[in-house]
Amino acid sequence: MSNDLLVVGSVAIDSVETPFGREDEALGGSALYFTAAASLFAKVRLVAVVGEDFPLERIAFLSEREADLSGLDRRPGRTFRWKGRYGFDLNEAHTLETHLNVFEAFVPELTPEQRACPYVFLANIDPDLQQRVLDQVDAPRFVALDTMNFWIEGKRRSLVEAIGRVNLVVLNDAEARMLAGEPNLVRAAQEILSWGPDGVVVKQGEYGAIYFADHHVFSAPAYPLEAVFDPTGAGDSFAGGLMGYLASTGNEDPDNIRRAIVFGSALASFDVEAFSFRRLETLTYPEVAERFRAFKALTHFEAELD
Amino acid sequence: MSNDLLVVGSVAIDSVETPFGREDEALGGSALYFTAAASLFAKVRLVAVVGEDFPLERIAFLSEREADLSGLDRRPGRTFRWKGRYGFDLNEAHTLETHLNVFEAFVPELTPEQRACPYVFLANIDPDLQQRVLDQVDAPRFVALDTMNFWIEGKRRSLVEAIGRVNLVVLNDAEARMLAGEPNLVRAAQEILSWGPDGVVVKQGEYGAIYFADHHVFSAPAYPLEAVFDPTGAGDSFAGGLMGYLASTGNEDPDNIRRAIVFGSALASFDVEAFSFRRLETLTYPEVAERFRAFKALTHFEAELD
Repeated sequence: MSNDLLVVGSVAIDSVETPFGREDEALGGSALYFTAAASLFAKVRLVAVVGEDFPLERIAFLSEREADLSGLDRRPGRTFRWKGRYGFDLNEAHTLETHLNVFEAFVPELTPEQRACPYVFLANIDPDLQQRVLDQVDAPRFVALDTMNFWIEGKRRSLVEAIGRVNLVVLNDAEARMLAGEPNLVRAAQEILSWGPDGVVVKQGEYGAIYFADHHVFSAPAYPLEAVFDPTGAGDSFAGGLMGYLASTGNEDPDNIRRAIVFGSALASFDVEAFSFRRLETLTYPEVAERFRAFKALTHFEAELD
Repeated sequence: MSNDLLVVGSVAIDSVETPFGREDEALGGSALYFTAAASLFAKVRLVAVVGEDFPLERIAFLSEREADLSGLDRRPGRTFRWKGRYGFDLNEAHTLETHLNVFEAFVPELTPEQRACPYVFLANIDPDLQQRVLDQVDAPRFVALDTMNFWIEGKRRSLVEAIGRVNLVVLNDAEARMLAGEPNLVRAAQEILSWGPDGVVVKQGEYGAIYFADHHVFSAPAYPLEAVFDPTGAGDSFAGGLMGYLASTGNEDPDNIRRAIVFGSALASFDVEAFSFRRLETLTYPEVAERFRAFKALTHFEAELD
């Protein structure tokens, strides 16, 4: 089985406007960004739903990276569609329209191969569905989940339950504060840890990410880029790099989780360099390894004092 | 002469409100925070002005750290007073009142000992006055300056001139973007570098700081704290730790500038733990060195890949 990586989440067709341009009919969705990033490291099995309008040929590159797309259910109707706009502050997306379409009736049912995956990523979907996936998987070695303000507000109890069943929570800083009801980020992370997961990664957009576990904190910057074209999918690419690296190494030691977070940051930095996941599509592992080393150069300082 | 460190800036009496409390008659001002931090590393010579209401006995601890306070001019009238409030987003101060008082007529005149200082920090004051200080110093080895939106809007030409005469610019991210007229931080820093300084440190509040020089970028996080009581002076404490460490080592190699930025971050993290500069007052060098090492633990990852 090696270290297959299951992802369950959304696949979407987006309309995105940034100060640098606009793209309609851009492919997106949390599970697709995740797969585009993680498939550079590990065999990814994707579980999601699309409509009849989804151009499957445009994700053929994922099959070339040996991703298993057989769990991409094609249903009558239209694909989930999201329309958003970013201002010069690229940290926050303003949602203009959301049409769930076939995603509204999405209920993940896993095949034996999907259930057997030792690595699992529950992308940002209804926590009831995240728990439904957890009910079906056999005995995963490492499970992470992402979420968003919509579920924190509307399904907090189920979300807290789901968090208690996973190893790692990945969310952004506003979400961490909202979820814990605590403005201080350190205390917010401690509150979330008290619900059961081994670790919490708080994504901070252009500022990087910070990881909290018991008596352990790790901070990674974002890669300073001269041009950010489209931040859509940065968080899911981050999770894809992180989980893909863990799956490829089969090692969740604290030191390896640090490296995984840097790989996540590297993938997020590539994602934002072009619209949709176009940069992830052409990306190669040597380029990723080079940026990983660039993160070392970016953060290293000599700790020896005279 | 060793590596004496000259600072020219404001000394104030502040009224500060945060979600955690309120303090009136708190001592503050850029030059005082700077001196409280830098005096842990090097001999600081302070040039500033206060009124008759200023309680000199409350800064006696600076003399014990061998700071030279003879340049603190006491004039008839009241000390510069600032009243501000922070919300739960502790990154931004809302100014409620500013009374320049004796600071309005401040014109720095340096003594021979002050002119001879090899390290100089021009805290956030009118760039015309910053240049007046630069006209007076003999041949400093390393000069840094800070500024704020008020001077960027009102005295941009003089500020750009002053920047062309120093080694290092220290400012926050909104100021960097405003000053360069460029929303992307990397390009904003490149624009500022094109005016002449060797480096730019962009402070990012609770997210840390990022340093730009020719073909050289270094990113340092802020220290994650469970309790931030009063962010006032964090930026000046940062500059004090940075410049104090440089002065104490007499070394401006890129590697040492990285360490200096981490010391700056350490001092800023202590500053915000209590109102005014109370934490800096009791702080010892061993505590600072311990936090410096904690920054290493916070940011280190093994770059070797299998």
